[in-house]
Amino acid sequence: MKSVIPGPLGAVPQTVYLDHAATTPMFPAAVEAMTAVLGAVGNASSLHGSGRVARRQLEEARESIAADLGARPSEVIFTSGGTESDNLAVKGIYWARRAADPKRTRILVSAVEHHAVLDAVEWLEQHEGAQVSLLEVDRDGLVPAPALREILTKHAGEIALISIMWANNEVGTIEPIAELAALAQEFDIPLHTDAVQAAAALPIDFAGSGAAAASFAAHKVGGPHGVGVLLLGRQVGCVPLLHGGGHERDLRSGTSDVPGVVGMAAALRETVQELPSRTAELTILRDDLVTGVRAAIPDVVVNGPAESRLPGIAHFTFPGCEGDSLLMLLDAAGIECSTGSACNAGVAAPSHVLLAMGVRAREARGSLRFSLGHTSTRADIDRVLEALPPAVDRARAAGLASVQGGSR
Amino acid sequence: MKSVIPGPLGAVPQTVYLDHAATTPMFPAAVEAMTAVLGAVGNASSLHGSGRVARRQLEEARESIAADLGARPSEVIFTSGGTESDNLAVKGIYWARRAADPKRTRILVSAVEHHAVLDAVEWLEQHEGAQVSLLEVDRDGLVPAPALREILTKHAGEIALISIMWANNEVGTIEPIAELAALAQEFDIPLHTDAVQAAAALPIDFAGSGAAAASFAAHKVGGPHGVGVLLLGRQVGCVPLLHGGGHERDLRSGTSDVPGVVGMAAALRETVQELPSRTAELTILRDDLVTGVRAAIPDVVVNGPAESRLPGIAHFTFPGCEGDSLLMLLDAAGIECSTGSACNAGVAAPSHVLLAMGVRAREARGSLRFSLGHTSTRADIDRVLEALPPAVDRARAAGLASVQGGSR
Repeated sequence: MKSVIPGPLGAVPQTVYLDHAATTPMFPAAVEAMTAVLGAVGNASSLHGSGRVARRQLEEARESIAADLGARPSEVIFTSGGTESDNLAVKGIYWARRAADPKRTRILVSAVEHHAVLDAVEWLEQHEGAQVSLLEVDRDGLVPAPALREILTKHAGEIALISIMWANNEVGTIEPIAELAALAQEFDIPLHTDAVQAAAALPIDFAGSGAAAASFAAHKVGGPHGVGVLLLGRQVGCVPLLHGGGHERDLRSGTSDVPGVVGMAAALRETVQELPSRTAELTILRDDLVTGVRAAIPDVVVNGPAESRLPGIAHFTFPGCEGDSLLMLLDAAGIECSTGSACNAGVAAPSHVLLAMGVRAREARGSLRFSLGHTSTRADIDRVLEALPPAVDRARAAGLASVQGGSR
Repeated sequence: MKSVIPGPLGAVPQTVYLDHAATTPMFPAAVEAMTAVLGAVGNASSLHGSGRVARRQLEEARESIAADLGARPSEVIFTSGGTESDNLAVKGIYWARRAADPKRTRILVSAVEHHAVLDAVEWLEQHEGAQVSLLEVDRDGLVPAPALREILTKHAGEIALISIMWANNEVGTIEPIAELAALAQEFDIPLHTDAVQAAAALPIDFAGSGAAAASFAAHKVGGPHGVGVLLLGRQVGCVPLLHGGGHERDLRSGTSDVPGVVGMAAALRETVQELPSRTAELTILRDDLVTGVRAAIPDVVVNGPAESRLPGIAHFTFPGCEGDSLLMLLDAAGIECSTGSACNAGVAAPSHVLLAMGVRAREARGSLRFSLGHTSTRADIDRVLEALPPAVDRARAAGLASVQGGSR
């Protein structure tokens, strides 16, 4: 295994960042596009010259993003990010459907959704009279179409919406979204899909997907934080979360963040253009990582499907380890990864995604996600393969001592 | 009156931007602070080194903003802007108060609020069982404390919250917020205040104000778009609008926009430090503008109070003119202003603020707002005083022709 070559003057080697699913660095082109308009003035709702310039930038970004996601510009609703897009879709479509037909209070949602969907749905259940059907997943995290058909057949007349993510943020499972959306269309139920993770790694064709709505976040595709998109079909009713000046088809009020959406458009363009080559590169690197880890740690469990999986995600369970301890040991060695979703970091509970896939709580807690992205290199993988085995040994020893000491 | 000196080669003179209340250019220091972290990587919720760096930047920005607004860091909830802050406060506090006591469904709101408050309240009225008491204002746009006391006395046990803005975005009226908040405290009712416009021009002491919650937007104080703050007292119950990962005290989920809040903190710091000198400068310029306009157009009406008014706002009614025509004529002369709130630009309805102040609809439509800010100069005022009188003449002639032609 290649050893780490110290930098000049024996400096600490550069950090290995393998947490791209939490957030990925901005593309230089996106930083450039965004900073070019940061210094400008003009509210895109103002009627004067500066306002019209800002409006043109806003609408050009909208057209660019629509083109890159296979949607029409009028279907692009700008939001503050993936969480807002998810909340707007789930709550907004629920309220609109219930208003049109008070019987429609049931929400179908997969058990492996991001908390931005699950917690929004839970709130609707506790406060807004929603009934929730949780769609179970198989061992790979996939939602079986027959299970969806069964629930649709049983509850057709009372379903407000379905929400199933395009690809999972923890283990990388790619759901059969076109098949599931076709089923939803058969029963005339709108399907929302959280495509926040998918957009960085898969071609997105909103029109072809059959989905009624899809959520995106700029910072997961090399764009800025604080910006996102909800694609929403023109015919899909949706009640706004943010009322006010009537921006974004009256669905999302608030002064337009022109620099943000310009940065998002630039990042998405680069993501889409580089997708084929990036997918090939990341798949090779990721597979080498998996092969290397399996060779070094024979009892490791690799989570997620072998095929239908995001190219940049490698998710492992290391029996007898605490994921948090492993994460800290790797961090000390300059390797940054995650125990799951950054959005729940700090929470000691085992991942709901792994539990839904049938992993036992004890094993689930011994898991790590390495997520590769546009800055990842062969050297990153080599560093992990060097640092991980001793870290696992130490974490196991600590776990054993802890069990023997009876402290947990 | 000084004539406009053409630039080199007879170039068109620089645009005069007098729409700072719609959005004000970012301070160079804010652009610099923000761009310095745009290239960084790290989700502030991640546990590894890059995540901890981002978290530290987030918390330092929070502390800086808290210090500049007279609040505790734990009272700073980051949002996507003023509209979200207003919606979160109004809906969130309403839901929390109603959950604690089902009788508390009444909302007291001034008639001159921004649409982000008014439309949020209207939605609560139509969909969530709220009763609304609209607080009338006097001719200057001020909410009279005795009127508030009267409604509080009458409805004390059924009031969920009060929302009264710190300063009005159209005419610049500064409400007696401390007096009104003291009344609210006397009746133990939380008062939210939209301080979006106030923050650019007035010292803000949240603790001293007596308010339970206050809304802010970064782009109104020289910071970036897409970022805002809701100050929320620790003891004030509030239901989140955006559920998910549990960020911001579980009150506002969504990946933290670290570059955005860093930019906001830098902008607010500069705003606060320069406040005394800027207030003095803007007051002189604004008063000279008003004096000059009065001299040139004797029948002009100056809206808003003489005293309790934001230093940078001059709001006029030109009898016999259409505000939109005037705006376009001035725009053609390189002068950018507004007919009212940019958030309602394009809507031909007369301003609800002016109507609430007793201005007749016909007059209200002949109004213009000039809002000065940190880039405003004496030359800007000179340019307006040169261009405005002929523009008013032309707009009046057009209005007269239109009336005589019977087309409206």
